[in-house]
Formats: sequence, structure tokens, C-alpha cells
Amino acid sequence: MDQPKWSPSEKSIARRIYDGALHRELDAITQEVQDRANSIKTPSDVWALEGYLTESRKRIDGKYEYKYSVLPLLFAQLLREGNIALEDLDGLGEDKLAYVRALGSFAGKGPTS
Amino acid sequence: MDQPKWSPSEKSIARRIYDGALHRELDAITQEVQDRANSIKTPSDVWALEGYLTESRKRIDGKYEYKYSVLPLLFAQLLREGNIALEDLDGLGEDKLAYVRALGSFAGKGPTS
Repeated sequence: MDQPKWSPSEKSIARRIYDGALHRELDAITQEVQDRANSIKTPSDVWALEGYLTESRKRIDGKYEYKYSVLPLLFAQLLREGNIALEDLDGLGEDKLAYVRALGSFAGKGPTS
Repeated sequence: MDQPKWSPSEKSIARRIYDGALHRELDAITQEVQDRANSIKTPSDVWALEGYLTESRKRIDGKYEYKYSVLPLLFAQLLREGNIALEDLDGLGEDKLAYVRALGSFAGKGPTS
């Protein structure tokens, strides 16, 4: 598939979407870490928190890559997860939106956690 | 060096020392985890907490092994660290105490963190 070209204003929108989504995920991880830390009852709770952090880091590292070639796939995933809304994509050209929709419908339907 | 024999009452004392020291270390780790979790300001604070947990788990795993052949070395280390006091060893035979003292003086002097 041809890679669409991104205009300066589209790049700016993409960056805002990306940063906002990443920020929300990191906030959610921070909240979960605090909740877990403050509910530690046993040593296994401590090491389970380590496991959660390691898993979260790998998930975030694998998911967030600021490359225009993969941003549409990320946006499709964020839409499915409810991290971003369709309106957040306003201002992106139809070529990117079609790409996001196509990837979204290939990659699975319905909300996922 | 000959391995000393441990009487039932010495084994009971050793178990109490071991469990108490491990419990205190895990409590200190839990406190540090909670302090760090509740002071998270940036994503790097989150991943630094993961690093602290991984390092702590490896340190604890490497340090605590309930084998009579290595307990004197552990007790010497715990004494140096201030995790246990000499009185905690009351009831252990002179053969073990001499061993603890010898290992303590070989392994370094003065308080360590």
C-alpha cells in the first residue's frame, strides 16, 4: 500500500493525538502502580507489581513508535481501545482516515480493554 | 572448615532470626515501593521503580537461602547491616557464634547500608 504524505498540519495533529494517548496510558499505569503499591499485603504482591511494571513497559515500548508509516495502525488500535475518539482525528486527510478505518476493521471489532 | 551440627533448639532460633530479618527487609522494600509510587512525577519514575523492584528481588533471592551451611554467613552479614543484633544469636552454640564472628571479620567491617 502506498504510504500517504503527511502535511505539516497533519503532522501536528498526529503528534497531539500520539502524545495525548501515551500520556493517558502512562497516567493509567501510574494510578494502577499506586493502587497496587498501597495494597501490598504479602511479598508476592511486591513481585507481582514488578511483573505488572515489566509487562507494561514492554507493552508501551512495542505499541508506541512515532513513525508515520505505523501511526494509522496505532490510531486504529487507540480508537478500538477507546483511548481516542473519531473526532480526535479531525483534520487528517481522507487518505489517512481511510487507512485507519481499513486497519481498524481488519484488526478486530468492538471495544477491547 | 567442618560444618557444625545444629540442635533442634538452635534450628528453631535460626529460623526465627532468618524469618525476622527477611520480614524486615521485605517491609523496608514495601515502604520504599510505596514512597516511590506515591512520588511518581514522570514516566521515568515509573520505570525506575521497576528497576528498583527487579534489583531488590535479585538481591533478596541471592541473599536469603535457608541452608545451615550458609546461615552463619548470612547472620554475619545481617549483623553488619544492623538488621539483627548480637543478642538475637543468643542460644546458638559457641561453634556457630565463632563461625559468624570469623565470617563477619573476613567479610568486612563497619556498618553498611
